[in-house]
Amino acid sequence: MSRVAGVYETVVYAVDVVAAARFYSDVLELSPLEEPTELSAAFRLDDRGVFLIFDPVRASAVGRRVPAHGATGAGHVAFAVEEGGLEAWAGELRRRGIDIEREITWEEGGRSLYVRDPAGNSVELVEGEAWPVSLRDATD
Amino acid sequence: MSRVAGVYETVVYAVDVVAAARFYSDVLELSPLEEPTELSAAFRLDDRGVFLIFDPVRASAVGRRVPAHGATGAGHVAFAVEEGGLEAWAGELRRRGIDIEREITWEEGGRSLYVRDPAGNSVELVEGEAWPVSLRDATD
Repeated sequence: MSRVAGVYETVVYAVDVVAAARFYSDVLELSPLEEPTELSAAFRLDDRGVFLIFDPVRASAVGRRVPAHGATGAGHVAFAVEEGGLEAWAGELRRRGIDIEREITWEEGGRSLYVRDPAGNSVELVEGEAWPVSLRDATD
Repeated sequence: MSRVAGVYETVVYAVDVVAAARFYSDVLELSPLEEPTELSAAFRLDDRGVFLIFDPVRASAVGRRVPAHGATGAGHVAFAVEEGGLEAWAGELRRRGIDIEREITWEEGGRSLYVRDPAGNSVELVEGEAWPVSLRDATD
């Protein structure tokens, strides 16, 4: 059995997909894979992962090519930024008038800041590690 | 400004976190980072990304160290498996009596299968690409 290598698609939900997509493209500078629609928006990350936004109502309709899904309420996603880059991000977000909800320095050495996307999802930017590398590491 | 490098944390929600965690560790063979609790479970992927399961009620409580979040309804996540590995995964899932809800061959050459985790989240295993590499590629 081949092991699962990593996450390929990460999803958050937004009733107004286009407004949420604008946040991820304009503020976080993610690279769109297609023009956002009322159903979905798709972005390709530099590590080749795909980040998706779906309208939970349209995505949960039956009869789509893919199985139905769709969640409501605030989701959460964390994006990795390069070491030393978080401070510049904090300045840029403040310059744009975006409220930084929290900043955390982790026991593992990493640092995070948290903002909200227009749909209310909790969006974290992290530099370094917020988690132990492995379970062994965690229990040492 | 440093670019966002990739997704660091991907989240799905489950009211019974422990049952959902068992699916991801036992069936998908993800590596736990800690013993699952009623609040959360954490897994480290081979590409160093972190996959998290949260109870939406406990995670949305105010006063936690991190900002509140928590969604209800079926979420979606896709995991990458190595090229040529999907067929073995299909056989293994069937052997375990897990219903494969759908199988799709993508225009981009990749292939996916879809199952449900115990919380009803739509879980996709993908080999190859299900998305264009970039927007330019998408519009060629």
